[in-house]
Amino acid sequence: MNKQKLYVVKIGGSLIDSESKLKSFLKQFSTISEMKILVHGGGKLASDLAETLNIPQQMIDGRRITNRETLDIVTMVYAGKINKNIVANLQNFNCNAIGFSGADGNLIKAEKRSISNIDYGFVGDVDSKNVNIDLLLEFLKLKLVPVFSAITHDRKGNLFNTNADSVASVLAQTLSDFYEVELLYCFDKNGILEDIENSNSVLKSLNFEKYEQLLIDNQLNAGILPKLKNAFAAKQNKVKKVVFLNETKLENYINHQNDGTEIK
Amino acid sequence: MNKQKLYVVKIGGSLIDSESKLKSFLKQFSTISEMKILVHGGGKLASDLAETLNIPQQMIDGRRITNRETLDIVTMVYAGKINKNIVANLQNFNCNAIGFSGADGNLIKAEKRSISNIDYGFVGDVDSKNVNIDLLLEFLKLKLVPVFSAITHDRKGNLFNTNADSVASVLAQTLSDFYEVELLYCFDKNGILEDIENSNSVLKSLNFEKYEQLLIDNQLNAGILPKLKNAFAAKQNKVKKVVFLNETKLENYINHQNDGTEIK
Repeated sequence: MNKQKLYVVKIGGSLIDSESKLKSFLKQFSTISEMKILVHGGGKLASDLAETLNIPQQMIDGRRITNRETLDIVTMVYAGKINKNIVANLQNFNCNAIGFSGADGNLIKAEKRSISNIDYGFVGDVDSKNVNIDLLLEFLKLKLVPVFSAITHDRKGNLFNTNADSVASVLAQTLSDFYEVELLYCFDKNGILEDIENSNSVLKSLNFEKYEQLLIDNQLNAGILPKLKNAFAAKQNKVKKVVFLNETKLENYINHQNDGTEIK
Repeated sequence: MNKQKLYVVKIGGSLIDSESKLKSFLKQFSTISEMKILVHGGGKLASDLAETLNIPQQMIDGRRITNRETLDIVTMVYAGKINKNIVANLQNFNCNAIGFSGADGNLIKAEKRSISNIDYGFVGDVDSKNVNIDLLLEFLKLKLVPVFSAITHDRKGNLFNTNADSVASVLAQTLSDFYEVELLYCFDKNGILEDIENSNSVLKSLNFEKYEQLLIDNQLNAGILPKLKNAFAAKQNKVKKVVFLNETKLENYINHQNDGTEIK
């Protein structure tokens, strides 16, 4: 049986910080005629608000230590301001978007990140076993376009700050039993670079051996590493295609499938 | 044909400002075995955050003038922090809650409040024609428990701050074509008082004539007036029963139907 195509599109960073760039991206996203899901990160907004409110932020390996006050901030910014503005803008582009945290409909349950030597606080880790896939499939049947913030929960009343790249990967993996899923990590580069200093050195594809070589050669910046880990996990778990893509070229990619770096 | 029963329950104010009171209320709410919908206001949190962020707030007749910065605050607090914490807590009580703003699934479209001599800014007014009832019915069929924040949108990309009492009334009216709807306004009093100075003078019922008499006698405080307006509108538009109820007595009310003030 041929599966229907479904795009899981992840956005974050500077795109979310710019109202005009975000609108332009959402207009492109709304033109995708196939089934689609959007997952968004948080950009700088949460850090900015924490600074204004004098709540010191601590990052370890790019992960935010999330105490109670910081959890409130990310819940307000990610699940509130960013999520609802994305939904309202997509509605304006005739896309029947519906915004979710993982707590809504118990769509994504997470485990509190286990404490080794670091306590990350209210930080959750997700895997594909904890997606409420039945409900998600019902929403897709209703032609809704889910928009996920990376806030999850534990079904014990706690919300968790969660990595948005992981949420996108886990959703793509779970949905691959039912759809031909393409997972698109959209960012501000044209793809993964062979030479970190040369923006024209975009790799057409990247397999695990090449990735290890780039690591040894110090050609990958710290920010891309968790994304790549999630991308390889998706590729190894039934996701049909995983691509790193410039966020300004989504529409072109959908029409011609010839941009960015494909994970092999 | 007998219609199924459905409760639309509105909460707000001091209940939302107290984590322990809110949890205790949500536990009661989760025990309702009939279909149910929760609508929540915002309490003091938005004003507190605005004060911390030095964004001056202007209220006219209890309505918040909502400029762009204030809209961001209410979206973060109502649709983010409060809504997602309520949903996570209900999930903990085995209630499959799902949080919505009006933008989500285009569930509630609003009209920008028309400017006479006051510009309220991003404030929307709702009526029952602008509820996406088909989608809401699908969610109820899926045994989901919708939790609405009072943020709506205009389908042109704008979010609106909206009166939560009106949202509850409009949802109750729209759903009355399909369900036998009971609309419960939960607050910190035992009901509407005949004598504003005597907390034991709770009226068993209140009709429009009595309401006008209380107005003349100056027995109604300003805060209750928009609630009563919405309550009478609901009663006049097919809603089976409208009751003002102490928020600590929800479970008792559901079991015995003998608390509070019924609007006639």
